Amino acid sequence: MVKIGILGVGTVGASVANILEQNADIIEARSGKKIVAVHGVVKNLSKDRGVNITLSDNPYDVVDNPEIDIVVELMGGVEEPYELVKRALANGKAVVTANKALLAYHRYELQELAGDLPLMYEASTAGGIPIIGALRNGLTANHIESIQGIMNGTCNYMLTKMIKEGVRYDDVLAEAQELGYAEADPTFDVGGFDAAHKLLILSSIAYGIDAKPEDILIEGIQNITQTDVDFAKEFGYEIKLLGIAKKVGSGVELRVHATMIPSESMIAKVDGVMNAVTVRGDRVGETMYYGPGAGGNATASAVIADIVDIVRGNSNPMLGYKKSLESGLKLLSRDEIRSHYYLRMSVDDKKGVLAEITQLLSRHDISIEAMMQKPDHDKDECVELLFIIHECSEKMIQDAIVALEALDVIHGKIGMIRIEQ
Amino acid sequence: MVKIGILGVGTVGASVANILEQNADIIEARSGKKIVAVHGVVKNLSKDRGVNITLSDNPYDVVDNPEIDIVVELMGGVEEPYELVKRALANGKAVVTANKALLAYHRYELQELAGDLPLMYEASTAGGIPIIGALRNGLTANHIESIQGIMNGTCNYMLTKMIKEGVRYDDVLAEAQELGYAEADPTFDVGGFDAAHKLLILSSIAYGIDAKPEDILIEGIQNITQTDVDFAKEFGYEIKLLGIAKKVGSGVELRVHATMIPSESMIAKVDGVMNAVTVRGDRVGETMYYGPGAGGNATASAVIADIVDIVRGNSNPMLGYKKSLESGLKLLSRDEIRSHYYLRMSVDDKKGVLAEITQLLSRHDISIEAMMQKPDHDKDECVELLFIIHECSEKMIQDAIVALEALDVIHGKIGMIRIEQ
Repeated sequence: MVKIGILGVGTVGASVANILEQNADIIEARSGKKIVAVHGVVKNLSKDRGVNITLSDNPYDVVDNPEIDIVVELMGGVEEPYELVKRALANGKAVVTANKALLAYHRYELQELAGDLPLMYEASTAGGIPIIGALRNGLTANHIESIQGIMNGTCNYMLTKMIKEGVRYDDVLAEAQELGYAEADPTFDVGGFDAAHKLLILSSIAYGIDAKPEDILIEGIQNITQTDVDFAKEFGYEIKLLGIAKKVGSGVELRVHATMIPSESMIAKVDGVMNAVTVRGDRVGETMYYGPGAGGNATASAVIADIVDIVRGNSNPMLGYKKSLESGLKLLSRDEIRSHYYLRMSVDDKKGVLAEITQLLSRHDISIEAMMQKPDHDKDECVELLFIIHECSEKMIQDAIVALEALDVIHGKIGMIRIEQ
Repeated sequence: MVKIGILGVGTVGASVANILEQNADIIEARSGKKIVAVHGVVKNLSKDRGVNITLSDNPYDVVDNPEIDIVVELMGGVEEPYELVKRALANGKAVVTANKALLAYHRYELQELAGDLPLMYEASTAGGIPIIGALRNGLTANHIESIQGIMNGTCNYMLTKMIKEGVRYDDVLAEAQELGYAEADPTFDVGGFDAAHKLLILSSIAYGIDAKPEDILIEGIQNITQTDVDFAKEFGYEIKLLGIAKKVGSGVELRVHATMIPSESMIAKVDGVMNAVTVRGDRVGETMYYGPGAGGNATASAVIADIVDIVRGNSNPMLGYKKSLESGLKLLSRDEIRSHYYLRMSVDDKKGVLAEITQLLSRHDISIEAMMQKPDHDKDECVELLFIIHECSEKMIQDAIVALEALDVIHGKIGMIRIEQ
């Protein structure tokens, strides 16, 4: 019998305990052994968790418990679970974690500490979708050319509503909060930070890149307007919050931001709270993995898949490689990233303005692919100019935006959305 | 160093040899060992295969070769590769096969024979998509409720052309043959047999069902007309050749046939030669896996993923379970399968015909959900009647079709397409 201890018995932890019990037949058939959750740790013991396991409020009841074979960490946070996972590994226990923040900051230390002990984390990224397994085991023949992921259900729900139903950002955020899809402070989701944690995990498996959230470009969906949505629809794009990892020469771009992508691409068709990750390998071409990115049962499904893998005796290297990965791949700075861009600006509705703007762009070596002028519904004396910009570097576009915003004829901030073809 | 022998150095075999050489850096990093293809077996030695390995025309040069650790079987056929795989296993070698026909007929014997030796087959189903890994490792917490797969790129290419561009069946088949997507004798693809082999493999992992192709319902796309396509579009359906495995009580339906599915479902959005498999688990909900289902490099990507898994020392049970799977699950007979149905029939354009037909359906306890009448463009004195039928059993609908076809007022065969909601 294999005994499981669970740190954090919230929605996911309770699902893990209950599925292990309720689907014990099939889990034993597939793993070859009885797997039983025996102990859970919670902060507040007075709350009913709806599980048939012993509960206590001391995490060392699990990580120091000689009876327990596998520790499942579902606490959230970074430093406290880090200490506990280290302790569990030091005690010779296998660990399964769904904690993306922990991994975004400490995955390389953890890989080192784990050594030959299994440390698995399928549930950390894209919930119930077995994307870690696909990348770590299914695509090993490939140099990974790029990863594009819709890895935050809150943002995808909001963007779908904005594009498909024309609901404005503020209204759809309020609605998402009411439905429990968004927190009271939604920054972690709508600001792209949640997706960034997951992107960092995937990029380690694909590229062996050791970066932390503060090292990469992270933007959210807060500045998307109805004009952007209308433009995207008119030009055959969807707008998605994508986590993107891309190999360019011997560099790797890592970035999270709202992105215009062609409506006919598979990932553009992923609507609502669902998640999906597209991986392009140099040999296999494009594959995509789709499913629920959150929810107690879906996330617990991924946790238990890891437990079964451990019980079967599999020995996948934690971050996907046993010897050091491709040498010479380095994280590109934010300035070096290259993209196509969409720009939106509110300008004075008078003669010579367009010439002034296009001359400025030209002086910055920025070349215009398409331009459109629309009435500005918010300001009578203004029009909105919308540009699609040929591929250039992030440094070039950011410099140009600063210069443009300094012009008297341009009002307010310039809206910018990156375009992936 | 791990040495690979390849039985069958066609497109896929050559890709395996070349990727092992060209992507050796990343494959060694991920597996921990150098992996080298050393010997290939071909029928015709005079043809250049574009590979840097020793070739011979005697398969025993590989399966009896004490130097070789892993045998990759890519010959096609059933009985010859079966003998060779048995011999390789008897010689203590691990085996990787992409041969769906071999597995459709002999997977249970092979599981028995392999014992603790790895016998892997990711490439046998849906080409480069790591669906075997997803089902065998990623979704182990779940009772599988259903699987729906687009697993034949030829059919999907043809159906996409028929629906999106209005090309007729015969024309699109000719085009597919010209492009090399379809064989001169296309029956294996368009008749659903290729998809059935793959479905049988997936259903073993999901349900432990031991069935052979002749035990299950297999129909193709040959009888789909422009009327069917127009109807599907009008009512918000796509038509796809699906392999379907579905748990119903303690029974399992296995079937391959053209299917009308709602256009908004994810799998309906999979166009052209691409493959996709949707798996519904009782805990995770719906996940989908999308990618190229054929092609030398894509298929070789899956073969090499298996090789890396073996080299890493993983020990996944061949068919996904270590103890016998859910007891009591049995294959439902063709007659017991239940579905919604679309029927198309050409009838005399005269009074009383509709009454005669609806009375007959009623006598067969078949209840009509929707009905439509259209001019029959092929026969002036006829009209086409199109019905959607509420869920009933295959036995009921087949009996009703026989009775209908015996009526004087109905001309020719009745067209039938199953509908999945």
